Amino acid sequence: MIIVGERLNSSRKEIYNAIENRDAAFIRNEAVAQANAGADYLDVNTGLFASKEAEQMAWLIDIVQDATPLPICIDSPNPEVIRHVLPMVEKTPMLNSITLEKKRFETLIPLVIDRSCKVIGLCQNDAKAAHTSLEKTTMASELIAEMKKAGVPEDHIYLDPLVFPLATDTNSAKATFHAVREIHETFPHLHLICGLTNVSYGLPKRKLINRSFLTVAIVMGLDAAIVDPLDKKLMAALKAGVLLNGRDPYARGYIEAYRNGLFEHF
Amino acid sequence: MIIVGERLNSSRKEIYNAIENRDAAFIRNEAVAQANAGADYLDVNTGLFASKEAEQMAWLIDIVQDATPLPICIDSPNPEVIRHVLPMVEKTPMLNSITLEKKRFETLIPLVIDRSCKVIGLCQNDAKAAHTSLEKTTMASELIAEMKKAGVPEDHIYLDPLVFPLATDTNSAKATFHAVREIHETFPHLHLICGLTNVSYGLPKRKLINRSFLTVAIVMGLDAAIVDPLDKKLMAALKAGVLLNGRDPYARGYIEAYRNGLFEHF
Repeated sequence: MIIVGERLNSSRKEIYNAIENRDAAFIRNEAVAQANAGADYLDVNTGLFASKEAEQMAWLIDIVQDATPLPICIDSPNPEVIRHVLPMVEKTPMLNSITLEKKRFETLIPLVIDRSCKVIGLCQNDAKAAHTSLEKTTMASELIAEMKKAGVPEDHIYLDPLVFPLATDTNSAKATFHAVREIHETFPHLHLICGLTNVSYGLPKRKLINRSFLTVAIVMGLDAAIVDPLDKKLMAALKAGVLLNGRDPYARGYIEAYRNGLFEHF
Repeated sequence: MIIVGERLNSSRKEIYNAIENRDAAFIRNEAVAQANAGADYLDVNTGLFASKEAEQMAWLIDIVQDATPLPICIDSPNPEVIRHVLPMVEKTPMLNSITLEKKRFETLIPLVIDRSCKVIGLCQNDAKAAHTSLEKTTMASELIAEMKKAGVPEDHIYLDPLVFPLATDTNSAKATFHAVREIHETFPHLHLICGLTNVSYGLPKRKLINRSFLTVAIVMGLDAAIVDPLDKKLMAALKAGVLLNGRDPYARGYIEAYRNGLFEHF
């Protein structure tokens, strides 16, 4: 599993404050803690700063790159922000995210090619986000084809089929699972990634749902996730998913996680 | 989901003692507690009493039937034991279990037909138990065909594809998931059931694995399970599986379970 650590996001109050106050020590700690907990990429998001998004992200990336050797996942819906910070990124980054929205696609794709970026592709076009399994697989095929045509190798693409709240869309998780399985079988070199929090929106005990969703999605073919690597119960659900998916020979990874105290809350 | 309560099993020391000492009050409490926790059937097993298995089971069934209105699941590998207790069973019971083993099949099938029993069918023949996905689906097809030929309706069959310990068989859960999905798609009226404890044998934090396995199996098509209905975390995993599988409109069942305190440990 490829783990994108999600903690450095300005929607978290303490991160917002640390960026606002230029508290480099706090950011550094957050970065190192995620690295130690097994993150492969560190997502950085300064969206809440609106007009100062690019400037704040540049500062944040500078601190994070100094704190850990991990590559960055630049998280912004704004191609201008990505263009602004991309030159300062040292290791091949991941971009979060591209879609089939025409303007967003055309602005981002030269940046993806220029730096051979990994890129998260959402199943969304100018008309809508993909809700049904068929919409997800159709948009995924189209997005993958467009990216390949532009020169992005299949294994640089992290396809996110999206998931919507079960509280209002009873079939949303099932549709995502089905899409993950279909896309995984059709594009064996592609990566599949998903955000986890949407699925439980509006329901109680959201973390139980998020964890269960992650375990099932991994068995369906998900091989990357945007998560909080310090959430031990979530990481345990991830390890359980990998074990059940037959990707943990003789349960060695599971046993190692147990020895490292990951399952202490179970 | 159809829940078969597993607690009345002589392999549990307190149950063994209660049967041995004719402690009807203890058995009665166990039966009522499982009924209140949502069991649809109560499994009764007196296998550890060996030569006294039939006699002890008759006593046990008598108490259980008096304590709750739930139907019984007669759990014995010995057709003679089943034949002995079947006449005293009031409601249409479930038999646990039939297999493709020639002698076991031929002895049991007249009893199944005679009482229109529900019956758990294991993917096992005289040569072996089914380990790979192909063995499971092949034996399942054969067992279902044989039972249908004998007059058992498809929706009376609870097919158990079996699962083996992940500690020694890395692909065992994946093989079971695949078989569940294939069999579910091929036989839409059939029920799919599975025991949960085998999968985690020999590994630490077994309940985490058992719960995760149950959630995934439900999304794959499992609609029945032999479980301890008093295990709140396991029942929470079950509710999460039903929710993720799109079988819980607007999450009403999930929210009700939350209100009833089922998720208090999360």
